[in-house]
Amino acid sequence: MVIEVDSAADPRIADYTRLRDTDLRKALESEQGLFLAEGEKVIRRALATGHPLRSLLTTRKWLPSFADLPADAPVYVVSDAVMENITGFQVHRGALASMGRLPLPAVQDLLGPARRVLVLEDLVDHGNVGAIFRCAAALGVDAVVLSPRCADPLYRRAVKVSMGAVFAIPYARMADWYGGLADLRRAGFQTLALTPDQNAPAIDKIPLADRVALLLGSEGDGLSSHWLAEADHGVSIPMSPNAMALGVDSLNVVAAAAIACHALLR
Amino acid sequence: MVIEVDSAADPRIADYTRLRDTDLRKALESEQGLFLAEGEKVIRRALATGHPLRSLLTTRKWLPSFADLPADAPVYVVSDAVMENITGFQVHRGALASMGRLPLPAVQDLLGPARRVLVLEDLVDHGNVGAIFRCAAALGVDAVVLSPRCADPLYRRAVKVSMGAVFAIPYARMADWYGGLADLRRAGFQTLALTPDQNAPAIDKIPLADRVALLLGSEGDGLSSHWLAEADHGVSIPMSPNAMALGVDSLNVVAAAAIACHALLR
Repeated sequence: MVIEVDSAADPRIADYTRLRDTDLRKALESEQGLFLAEGEKVIRRALATGHPLRSLLTTRKWLPSFADLPADAPVYVVSDAVMENITGFQVHRGALASMGRLPLPAVQDLLGPARRVLVLEDLVDHGNVGAIFRCAAALGVDAVVLSPRCADPLYRRAVKVSMGAVFAIPYARMADWYGGLADLRRAGFQTLALTPDQNAPAIDKIPLADRVALLLGSEGDGLSSHWLAEADHGVSIPMSPNAMALGVDSLNVVAAAAIACHALLR
Repeated sequence: MVIEVDSAADPRIADYTRLRDTDLRKALESEQGLFLAEGEKVIRRALATGHPLRSLLTTRKWLPSFADLPADAPVYVVSDAVMENITGFQVHRGALASMGRLPLPAVQDLLGPARRVLVLEDLVDHGNVGAIFRCAAALGVDAVVLSPRCADPLYRRAVKVSMGAVFAIPYARMADWYGGLADLRRAGFQTLALTPDQNAPAIDKIPLADRVALLLGSEGDGLSSHWLAEADHGVSIPMSPNAMALGVDSLNVVAAAAIACHALLR
């Protein structure tokens, strides 16, 4: 159902407007149970994993790419100028889709057959969350568990940076931060807390159990002392002896996650 | 020299205005030989590595942090509202410095004592360049060589994401892309081209020479076929056998750089 829309103020495209306002979008997306996927490949991955299409927003040039989409969802066609007016940026590969969220599993159900799990504590940057999901998919992680306050993997930037991996890797959100590691322990996971402390054993040297959960902390402060204490072992990524003198006391969380996931794949 | 400025239009703070316009800033920064550093820690690292201070822009709240700066450079003090009007975003730790660039060394001079070098071909994203410099500093890389078209490490976002590592790791820019690897070969470097091709030997298994240069390609297309052919070996990061089925055919360049630098540190 193709519908021409000639103004950014048209209420039919309200799902897409004011994309630049992060706070507004967070509220809109979580309260209304929607999220936005950008670009044909990512949109198709979201559809293939069962997410219902609310509508598509595209330009005349890109319309033919989407001729085979479910016929019951409205396809709003706008000019390039209206598209940029709505979004405030060039839309990657000319299309945005508004899609419905699926219910998340409970942590204990998520863990079922998983052998390698990432646990993200309070990451605030959506790009980092998306990049970590991409690493997880590339490097054999089976599932991701989020702390209650961790940034949303379906926020637009996270979806984009993940290249759609947020649809491919199952994830769940803990109901409770303080006791959040109990489900992992009950399921027999070895819990490894990644720390910049260079006295902790190196992640590529520590013996791995059959089921391993790697805990990653937030961008500024790293893991909470509570989770560090709760974990079976602290593990580190060895840094160059010269790093401190260069003013660098840690890796960024995506780099650390990549090295750690690679080490878990051995 | 503290100077109160009450309008974003004041010509004395022209170095800082229109920060949101990427194209304009690129031209301004490279033509006038300036760059911007954000936040006290990063500004101090830039000063400590000999970059001349043109001026500082801050708010009254943060002014005391900078009481010890070189007295000859103007310190412009603005209200929070003017600061946000100028920059369009919240400034990290309340200060921006406009600084002068230093001349870059020639590639052959840069290589002098280096044993581990990264070579970046045409990366376009300033955040990625900054994150790779941070990895390089943390993981024992001695120097970075940029292709002629690679994004500028002193662009504001690169400086910020690097946490100042762009001042700590020496770098140079090739004059010529086509023959750009010749200096490395002449200096006796083993050249390793990172490729998503899973048939290439794994980077953590390949025997390393005393001097190793790791080549990293651009975000979309990876390394050019010319550089892939010129390199001594292609090397890969093993991905999960399941990754393709999940729609992920590669790691992002920062994740790949992190894993590769970690492997070079062994």
